[in-house]
Amino acid sequence: MILEKYDVIVVGGGHAGCEAAAAAANLGSKTLLITMNLQTIGQMSCNPAMGGIAKGQIVREIDALGGLSGIVTDKTMIQFKMLNLSKGPAMWSPRAQSDRMRFSEEWRLQLENINNLDFFQDMVIGLLTDNNKIIGVETYMGAVIHSKSVILTNGTFLNGLIHIGNKQFGGGRMGEKAAYGITENLVELGFEAGRMKTGTPPRVDGRSINFYEMEEQKGDINPQKFSFTNTPKLIQQRSCYITYTNIKVHDVLREGFERSPLFNGTIKSTGPRYCPSIEDKINRFADRERHQIFAEPEGWQTVEYYINGFSTSLPDDIQIKALQLIPGFEKAKLFRPGYAIEYDYFPPTQLKNTLETKHINNLYFAGQINGTTGYEEAAAQGLIAGINASLKIKDRDPFILKRNEAYIGVLIDDLITKGTEEPYRMFTSRAEYRMSLRQDNADERLTPLSYSIGLASKERMINFEKKSKQTNDCINFIKSTSIRKDETNLILTQKNSAPISQSVKADSILVRPNIYLKDLEKVPSINNYIKSNHLPNEVLEQVEIKIKYKGYIDKELENVEKLNRLENIKIPVNFDYCKLNSISTEAKQKLIKFKPETIGQASRISGVSPSDVNILLIYMGR
Amino acid sequence: MILEKYDVIVVGGGHAGCEAAAAAANLGSKTLLITMNLQTIGQMSCNPAMGGIAKGQIVREIDALGGLSGIVTDKTMIQFKMLNLSKGPAMWSPRAQSDRMRFSEEWRLQLENINNLDFFQDMVIGLLTDNNKIIGVETYMGAVIHSKSVILTNGTFLNGLIHIGNKQFGGGRMGEKAAYGITENLVELGFEAGRMKTGTPPRVDGRSINFYEMEEQKGDINPQKFSFTNTPKLIQQRSCYITYTNIKVHDVLREGFERSPLFNGTIKSTGPRYCPSIEDKINRFADRERHQIFAEPEGWQTVEYYINGFSTSLPDDIQIKALQLIPGFEKAKLFRPGYAIEYDYFPPTQLKNTLETKHINNLYFAGQINGTTGYEEAAAQGLIAGINASLKIKDRDPFILKRNEAYIGVLIDDLITKGTEEPYRMFTSRAEYRMSLRQDNADERLTPLSYSIGLASKERMINFEKKSKQTNDCINFIKSTSIRKDETNLILTQKNSAPISQSVKADSILVRPNIYLKDLEKVPSINNYIKSNHLPNEVLEQVEIKIKYKGYIDKELENVEKLNRLENIKIPVNFDYCKLNSISTEAKQKLIKFKPETIGQASRISGVSPSDVNILLIYMGR
Repeated sequence: MILEKYDVIVVGGGHAGCEAAAAAANLGSKTLLITMNLQTIGQMSCNPAMGGIAKGQIVREIDALGGLSGIVTDKTMIQFKMLNLSKGPAMWSPRAQSDRMRFSEEWRLQLENINNLDFFQDMVIGLLTDNNKIIGVETYMGAVIHSKSVILTNGTFLNGLIHIGNKQFGGGRMGEKAAYGITENLVELGFEAGRMKTGTPPRVDGRSINFYEMEEQKGDINPQKFSFTNTPKLIQQRSCYITYTNIKVHDVLREGFERSPLFNGTIKSTGPRYCPSIEDKINRFADRERHQIFAEPEGWQTVEYYINGFSTSLPDDIQIKALQLIPGFEKAKLFRPGYAIEYDYFPPTQLKNTLETKHINNLYFAGQINGTTGYEEAAAQGLIAGINASLKIKDRDPFILKRNEAYIGVLIDDLITKGTEEPYRMFTSRAEYRMSLRQDNADERLTPLSYSIGLASKERMINFEKKSKQTNDCINFIKSTSIRKDETNLILTQKNSAPISQSVKADSILVRPNIYLKDLEKVPSINNYIKSNHLPNEVLEQVEIKIKYKGYIDKELENVEKLNRLENIKIPVNFDYCKLNSISTEAKQKLIKFKPETIGQASRISGVSPSDVNILLIYMGR
Repeated sequence: MILEKYDVIVVGGGHAGCEAAAAAANLGSKTLLITMNLQTIGQMSCNPAMGGIAKGQIVREIDALGGLSGIVTDKTMIQFKMLNLSKGPAMWSPRAQSDRMRFSEEWRLQLENINNLDFFQDMVIGLLTDNNKIIGVETYMGAVIHSKSVILTNGTFLNGLIHIGNKQFGGGRMGEKAAYGITENLVELGFEAGRMKTGTPPRVDGRSINFYEMEEQKGDINPQKFSFTNTPKLIQQRSCYITYTNIKVHDVLREGFERSPLFNGTIKSTGPRYCPSIEDKINRFADRERHQIFAEPEGWQTVEYYINGFSTSLPDDIQIKALQLIPGFEKAKLFRPGYAIEYDYFPPTQLKNTLETKHINNLYFAGQINGTTGYEEAAAQGLIAGINASLKIKDRDPFILKRNEAYIGVLIDDLITKGTEEPYRMFTSRAEYRMSLRQDNADERLTPLSYSIGLASKERMINFEKKSKQTNDCINFIKSTSIRKDETNLILTQKNSAPISQSVKADSILVRPNIYLKDLEKVPSINNYIKSNHLPNEVLEQVEIKIKYKGYIDKELENVEKLNRLENIKIPVNFDYCKLNSISTEAKQKLIKFKPETIGQASRISGVSPSDVNILLIYMGR
């Protein structure tokens, strides 16, 4: 039916599929995006928000690499907050609420603007392989479409089963069909499949909410953006609202436990630990008297609200009864009940660090199919899979981000070396080099890498280079500029910082804990430099961070180098672990199972100890 | 679960459901709209267009009555054309292309703005009745929701079965689930159910279309609107494109006939005669060498095109092969294949003229469930059902539009008296009073009626009254104004119309075939009147039509009066037709089956002759 042969077929049109398709096509590969419903491309299945702690960093990284999630979010956001501003810049995390309908529409339009990218609405039910190599897909309508590679981004659709109380029914999202056939096909091909669970809270009619009983949470006064490109700046914003559960709410929720698929054994698979359902929260933390609940608007104009923190698969009579005991929700009317969904995933230890599967050449997995949770984690994997699928069929080197280069590197390395038994979510604590992996320097870390493979645009690279030059020049100026005590001490005493007794270089003042660049700007020479060079805020921010936090950053970079030496030692593909007599049985089994590609990967597999790594190094002749 | 009791529950969120919910709520009834997916409210399941011949008149009527279809269309349209402008004003028919995504979004936002209207996402699987009276609905999730009345607007979802070539699968629309349970429930309650079929064409990637091979069809230079309210005027427009099939295309289509569910017996139900599939067209009109095809954009920015005229359920390999033989589509890429869908309907002779069912009190049907086709027909029924459901529970008189008052009156009268064996579509030829039922005077015909029941707003009524007064004043002025030969004859000779030899009243010139108001405007006194009174175009149009076509309109009104006398004679509810010995058996059977409420209805039942009506009148003592 589709007679053309594609370079890359992307199955699924969610966050992972959209980024994968965009990346592959933008790198010049003839790409086809197949989805069950072209009307639901880029749907936010759960909360209408992007970013958050560690996740916001990922979106900035995707943008720096030339992905589209940041641009789509900027163009559709209704509120922006930089989280963790009271902490150091490594913890700053951008987060935005988006207009759900516009987000989806914008993704669709962004994708339609990409050359080499075709679309087709159908359900993929099987994979075509030849000698352990993917050669295309088969669809429900009976189309056989050939391609050099395939990226699966099926999200929660593979054998998706929705639960609300005692009710269960097949579906990939509420109101949408599940996808059948692919799991069975992959298992036949030798893949190990598992089952995971996630959930979503009820949506409420905003007209029935009493916001006066809640705490208003406004967006930032000076809202920033995700994209390093010239996306529009947010002017108006919509507020979110905070309220709390209480003991009465918990009592009502407990009334539903007997009919809870989570507790009565109906749902056997594991849900996201850090995004638990409300019943899970009151069950696990029985002594807590309240939990925070956010009412988040779903768009610029709609009255629908997303009830963040109240994810549940309890029967809907319990959902509404409990909700109405929460301040502000006394008269709440449900638009849609919350529900849980079980779906198939494939333990990601079956993947290479390019997200290509180990079993089948040129077959890639990205997103929830790999056991992750979160739009940002999915989008990041889609981007990397799309890039690598495209590079491989052109015989180009793979594109792999290291743990010290990006959260995306941490994400993929964690997945493929450690696997995951529960939906994997990113945290800053997962990144050992988080002083370097900041949201503000994602362009510095990644845009040159992406530009070198041809994904980040020339314009993006020029912007970055300009910012970079301005930053370095300004740093050099500050380091080399002496400031006198008569122009400095008033500033210092106002900030309770010790006065200087003689002229010093400006950077020595900026590293003081309580002193910021905006304080130094009161010194005429510095003020003059900044003004005459028209330095924008993002440059000043870089200058400040790089001078103030230089000590921490340098220390981290030293560690990186040390570890990189180990990291990059490759383990031969067919290395025979059986001959390693002196290592633990667990380590041997895991090494055989996960087949790490480098010593670095091997060292991070849980159960593989440093001494096991040493023995491995010895056997490899080092 | 939903403990509240509603006045009106509307099942389904398509064109019928949206209008029904809006009307009932706007009339003050506590209304609940239940739909399987709140994300797909107001979806245009088929073409992204509203209006057209006779259908455009219906949209204008809906608007004049205070419905929302016209407003939603105006706010989202990307092209406007007044069809049939070369014919008389009775035939003028507005038609607009809309942005599919924005149309749906706008409907949702319009509905959210209505007080008394709640929303819930769930599937209704059964009706609750008590002693032949509806008392609520039961949902798939197990909710039991009570109400005083229920309006079913299930569209193509009831046991929906999608066909493409040899493939069949359950679904209400492509990618969406079918609804099960309601049909079975209604049949148990004594309803007769039937099966109908409709179809939709493939959607094509506009980037793969060669528009140079097609004929561009631009929107009107001076685009008008559907709504009589102050909706924005269209400024920019997008073009449609025309091309034609050819013998080669037909040959390829015929190759697929063996696998055509239409021809191989898989589809047994009847499709819309006047909106046939392309295979049906080449089969029925085998001698025609070409059929017109329109490529219609699906929105402001999207590259997706709707291929109007190419509806098909042939296998998708045939769809693409045939399409690529049509000029302009040589390299066409399918976004989505066309398909046919079979669904349950209920012969509408089971309804009263309020759209309430005869079997079950306070249960209403509207839209495709009544065997109609078309968004406009569906929306009109929804509006009338919503109005009457609301009026009845307040013990107010029903709201019934007569055949001489509105196309909507014709539509409903046709449905309930004649029934329909195939999807019913409106035509101007169905309206015996079409000289009166113009798109331009829908406000005059309907706004006062709607205002009197409290649906049309005060503002709408004031607007209409102002327009009406300006029109009448202007008509009176023209009728009473003498124009001299020296200021008139140049105009007349320029238009090849006979000169006048003495002063005449201006209206006697305007009735001449070739003379229009814009010609008369060259006469200073008339020009002065129009300018000094700032008469807008819609007033001038009314003036011209009412003067020029007065003869035809008056004649029609006379007929209306004659027929109305018969029309309004009520037949007793339990009238015993068996005692009518002298009428035909067919007439007797049909009368017993359809139980007409008036002599007028009886006279329009096919098989009931004028002499049968006379006998009936005699037996009724007249």
